[in-house]
Amino acid sequence: MSYFDAASSLPLHPVARQALLASVDEGWADPARPHREGRRARMLLDAARETAAEAVGCRPDELRFTSSGTQALHTGIRGVLAARRRAGRRLVVSAVEHSAVLHTAEAHERSGGLVREVGVDRTGRVEAQEWKQALGEDCALACLQSANHEVGTVQPVAEAAEACAEAGVPLLVDAAQSLPWGPVEGPWSLLTGSAHKWGGPAGVGLLAVRKGVRFAPPGPVDERERGAAPGFENIPAVVAAAAALRAVRAEADAEAARLRALVDRIRARVPELVPDTEVVGDPVRRLPHLVTFSCLYVDGEALLHALDTAGYSVSSGSSCTSSTLTPSHVLRAMGVLSEGNVRVSLPPGTAESEVDRFLEALPGAVEGVRAHLGIGARAEPADRGAAEAEVTVDARGKLCPLPVIELAKVIEDVPAGGVVRVLADDEAARLDIPAWCEMTGHAFEGVEGVEYRVRRTAPRRGA
Amino acid sequence: MSYFDAASSLPLHPVARQALLASVDEGWADPARPHREGRRARMLLDAARETAAEAVGCRPDELRFTSSGTQALHTGIRGVLAARRRAGRRLVVSAVEHSAVLHTAEAHERSGGLVREVGVDRTGRVEAQEWKQALGEDCALACLQSANHEVGTVQPVAEAAEACAEAGVPLLVDAAQSLPWGPVEGPWSLLTGSAHKWGGPAGVGLLAVRKGVRFAPPGPVDERERGAAPGFENIPAVVAAAAALRAVRAEADAEAARLRALVDRIRARVPELVPDTEVVGDPVRRLPHLVTFSCLYVDGEALLHALDTAGYSVSSGSSCTSSTLTPSHVLRAMGVLSEGNVRVSLPPGTAESEVDRFLEALPGAVEGVRAHLGIGARAEPADRGAAEAEVTVDARGKLCPLPVIELAKVIEDVPAGGVVRVLADDEAARLDIPAWCEMTGHAFEGVEGVEYRVRRTAPRRGA
Repeated sequence: MSYFDAASSLPLHPVARQALLASVDEGWADPARPHREGRRARMLLDAARETAAEAVGCRPDELRFTSSGTQALHTGIRGVLAARRRAGRRLVVSAVEHSAVLHTAEAHERSGGLVREVGVDRTGRVEAQEWKQALGEDCALACLQSANHEVGTVQPVAEAAEACAEAGVPLLVDAAQSLPWGPVEGPWSLLTGSAHKWGGPAGVGLLAVRKGVRFAPPGPVDERERGAAPGFENIPAVVAAAAALRAVRAEADAEAARLRALVDRIRARVPELVPDTEVVGDPVRRLPHLVTFSCLYVDGEALLHALDTAGYSVSSGSSCTSSTLTPSHVLRAMGVLSEGNVRVSLPPGTAESEVDRFLEALPGAVEGVRAHLGIGARAEPADRGAAEAEVTVDARGKLCPLPVIELAKVIEDVPAGGVVRVLADDEAARLDIPAWCEMTGHAFEGVEGVEYRVRRTAPRRGA
Repeated sequence: MSYFDAASSLPLHPVARQALLASVDEGWADPARPHREGRRARMLLDAARETAAEAVGCRPDELRFTSSGTQALHTGIRGVLAARRRAGRRLVVSAVEHSAVLHTAEAHERSGGLVREVGVDRTGRVEAQEWKQALGEDCALACLQSANHEVGTVQPVAEAAEACAEAGVPLLVDAAQSLPWGPVEGPWSLLTGSAHKWGGPAGVGLLAVRKGVRFAPPGPVDERERGAAPGFENIPAVVAAAAALRAVRAEADAEAARLRALVDRIRARVPELVPDTEVVGDPVRRLPHLVTFSCLYVDGEALLHALDTAGYSVSSGSSCTSSTLTPSHVLRAMGVLSEGNVRVSLPPGTAESEVDRFLEALPGAVEGVRAHLGIGARAEPADRGAAEAEVTVDARGKLCPLPVIELAKVIEDVPAGGVVRVLADDEAARLDIPAWCEMTGHAFEGVEGVEYRVRRTAPRRGA
């Protein structure tokens, strides 16, 4: 039984658990009340704010507690856009930000604002030069994550912050994934975090707003956390969150080095153990504990279930036959395969043996899913005499990974130089058919409407 | 040491504490994830939703958890106003709603909407007929609390809901103060609550939206709680909140009867024990555990401190010389005295002996504050021979309760039928000078600019 979904949420850190229990009896009163119980609650809140501010690298009066990381992002972005309305209406975001950022950007667009999405390379990293160019005269705010939550790639935040400072544009850094590992470098203006990503309780977010940044909290007036969080603070949870952040930071360097080595092992071994697999994300400039890979001819959700049954809890950015998984905008922006996607994020304390057992279990799990989809034992290409030079596969109405599977099944029915036309209306095919070509060495010749053209240029890799 | 500020927040109910501890280890994962830990979290969340829905009197799929009662109000009101924009832009609220409602109404006005405030009588109760008349063609939503948080008066919610249903206007009921005591009757459309008012943890609110009510969650898209709460649920807190609500409901009837008798004792004894005191709010149609009174010639904050020192934690709706207390819009709407205001709200389990000790301590505390303000030992009116028929007191720049104290000091310097003109620019004087006249039997003749005219019509009551 191994939980490898740390990037989604962590169990309470023992220090957080202790702090929660201790403050449940002391921190239940309204900290805005002048009576004894209120003052005691206020003291706990103030102390937690100091602890958290120290870890973030800001002044306590620059730090607001919110009811979640998502709420911190919503409030941070909307607060700056409102306050800097006269400076401009353009919001710059990377294409691989958390959905909370992109949804806020959509809302901004719906209300007449402009959004400029900056693309990423195949590792998921924003190109610093392109970032710089996106910051124009009419730019009210830019948002860049410190590290990507799906593939672990670390962004050039310090450079981006310098560029923003030069352009006079405030930068909001979504530090949800990196905050447990260390403070964010560079002259950022706003920063957000989420406690359950570092072993604090859910329901606690952080929003740091540097002095001098124009900021007008959105929504109805509320005095709590200077408008950043409607309703009164869940102080025991805030105390536990701050204590956990301090505790994980004390262990961060040693634990990062240890987990980095385990992730390196996964990155190296998975392609060896599982055929037709691509490890994605930057191999070096990455979070220490997170690795993502995609497996051809695999339904991501089925693979999650197979791994779950085998005792491993992981995550997936695939949008496959089942509707419970949403397609990953991150993988799409990177232009990498989305089918059979698995994100492994190791919690602090993960044992080496757990990782080794996972690596032993993975090939069987993938094979099982592929077999179920009729891919496991791929037949040698039938000797059909004169192969047709062009074959059409109608995969309309079929969802990921079926169009790619259909394509793989017929590619060897055409001679080298021949063409397979795939008709596919599943959105994921736009990403997965080109990615499949990239991985297998066949030539992707483009898509028109729902028709994808793939030219067989080489024998199947490994065949 | 007695905590009499239950209406603000309660310590964790023992059942909540137990539920919190039990679910901290089970409910930390993301309930949206399909893995084992996620499914376990989802089960806890679903069970908590069922428990809470049963207590509210709605279907589980009509109930959303939010990050606070305030957020539930913000979201509920804005969600209906947005969805019913075409039906009309008018929002009807009572004048004594929680500030979260009134602040949302202000924001609605700022964005071009209309707000109609329905007044209350001197007990703080909305008049059903006036309520009915306020519901017009262009009305998008009406909001009425189930009971007032400052004075305890219960509102005619069932009647108001019937009137709304007839007019085709959805009614949102802020049930924060009454939910621990029982469900809200009548055909309401939306209902909100706040867990720390019933012994659940802070950071958990409820928003029930009946099937068929048009509702569009405000803010950026977020899938959690169908858009009502950005970020993922603090499940241990939600579980604890639901468990506490069920537990307090099981004890509610017996405890309500017991506390009602204690509050009746306070209502009867305070005016006997402390001269120049007015008990406010409806004496019968009221919350069982809450009573509010105001003391002439007293700075509310100083009285809070004196009571705090004596070991009693209470609340105040006064806006007095210190700036930490905000003026009570509730007392203003009722037209009753705001100075020296004290709200006593008894937590479940309050012992009779605690209330008796409080009643013993109160007179000394009030006397101490009055003495400090030079009121304690009021001199008999000096025999000055021919009293002047008109006296002017300049209290400009002086804050509550000083203008009223100045007035009281000179009223007997004029003969019966004589006039005291008080110059006062403190906002609280608008409420307190007329209220003082009402209490002392002198005639308030009106205000022009900063000049208040008071005619001495009778000897001082009790003098």
